[in-house]
Amino acid sequence: MITTDEARRVIAAGEARAREIGVPANIAVLDAGAHMKAFVRMDGALLGSIDIAVNKARTAALFSMRTEAIGEFCRPGGTSFGLEQTNGGLVVFAGGIPLTDGSNIVIGAVGVSGGAVAQDLEIAQAAAAALAA
Amino acid sequence: MITTDEARRVIAAGEARAREIGVPANIAVLDAGAHMKAFVRMDGALLGSIDIAVNKARTAALFSMRTEAIGEFCRPGGTSFGLEQTNGGLVVFAGGIPLTDGSNIVIGAVGVSGGAVAQDLEIAQAAAAALAA
Amino acid sequence: MITTDEARRVIAAGEARAREIGVPANIAVLDAGAHMKAFVRMDGALLGSIDIAVNKARTAALFSMRTEAIGEFCRPGGTSFGLEQTNGGLVVFAGGIPLTDGSNIVIGAVGVSGGAVAQDLEIAQAAAAALAA
Amino acid sequence: MITTDEARRVIAAGEARAREIGVPANIAVLDAGAHMKAFVRMDGALLGSIDIAVNKARTAALFSMRTEAIGEFCRPGGTSFGLEQTNGGLVVFAGGIPLTDGSNIVIGAVGVSGGAVAQDLEIAQAAAAALAA
Repeated sequence: MITTDEARRVIAAGEARAREIGVPANIAVLDAGAHMKAFVRMDGALLGSIDIAVNKARTAALFSMRTEAIGEFCRPGGTSFGLEQTNGGLVVFAGGIPLTDGSNIVIGAVGVSGGAVAQDLEIAQAAAAALAA
Repeated sequence: MITTDEARRVIAAGEARAREIGVPANIAVLDAGAHMKAFVRMDGALLGSIDIAVNKARTAALFSMRTEAIGEFCRPGGTSFGLEQTNGGLVVFAGGIPLTDGSNIVIGAVGVSGGAVAQDLEIAQAAAAALAA
Repeated sequence: MITTDEARRVIAAGEARAREIGVPANIAVLDAGAHMKAFVRMDGALLGSIDIAVNKARTAALFSMRTEAIGEFCRPGGTSFGLEQTNGGLVVFAGGIPLTDGSNIVIGAVGVSGGAVAQDLEIAQAAAAALAA
Repeated sequence: MITTDEARRVIAAGEARAREIGVPANIAVLDAGAHMKAFVRMDGALLGSIDIAVNKARTAALFSMRTEAIGEFCRPGGTSFGLEQTNGGLVVFAGGIPLTDGSNIVIGAVGVSGGAVAQDLEIAQAAAAALAA
């Protein structure tokens, strides 16, 4: 299970990148069972992105997969039409990334929302990388 | 009505096929009234697939039809745009199959989720075949 | 995390006791994160008790506590008026018990519903004891 | 509006007190509009208390009042029978406290859950006091 200290390191790394690129973001860290571990809304981050950040992390935790990879399954022509409507509604665009420990076991997930999707992804990647360091 | 013994045979047959193809799956058996009868999450199966397996079985039970057949009605160009949003949200890709008794009466449904859609379908077919044997 | 084999042993022990006392029961086993691991509805068990069994297990998993102990907090004169309405609605009468491993770590929970509350509790205790054996 | 730095100070003060009294707690800080600003689940804190901590803060923010004060209105004999069922379900026992700035304007609320109600209240008071310092 992810610890509070690990969750804080993930969020701090995400915030640092968000500041660098000037995007106030919501950053959520959930454990492997998709339960909230830590969260921060940076000053100026959109209210509507709170739910998106949490749900990106939840989606990545539930499927042990990046949110945009899940999105491939439910795009037009994908194998799983309507997949995004399961589990009470998933978020299937980029910004949710599973967090792994040193043995490559999934211990949780981070979700970021606040900027353009490419920016959210960049912040989420920086956040997730904090555990690899 | 499907019995507990029948439900267990269905799940056991599904699990056997899942192990053969190396896919840890969630397998749900519902009765003809779409009420849960038996369920198992194989070790390693995705948490996000619990809801999908149950909902595939629910969808198949409610319409006495395979989930992917229902999916035909709501695909672009199909007759029933938005059908998948009825009944609190249906799952309309493969992996949910009605279960029939010797007289071809629907007595329930099985739903499988955990692998690629084609794998889920293969496991569900093996599961459903247990009652025909 | 509780394994499928452990979950089945828990359910089998619960079913055995339920048969002894002549009470068809719903028996649910969830993991420590409150996600469904295994479930069975014995033949003749009440449909309305499916949700109760699952929710007893969910309540016990979320609080690492027997459901009736949680009920003490929210009874008239208890410390936590309305506690049962949190988490989307808890079940706070007997029949939900945390499952522990050999080191007394909570690895999940079992929930039983189908008979009188005292019967449900007896079945749940027999079920939970299977992991201690 | 409460800032991220202020929210972190509130949580840090709550965590410090929680450690002193040996109670792993969930601590949530919401802004005056009842939107999540920051959250932490201390290692070992109950999963079922996540929702309660967030909802205590939400309740306190929505009514600019401590949760136990709102509880007085809806206890047997109080003026507002069923009040706790409004707003999608309030939490009306102690542990949610409005946060005020130097001019005594409400800028958010903190909610704490994880221990006995008296412990949650003690942690929440320590957390709220961080902004007064």
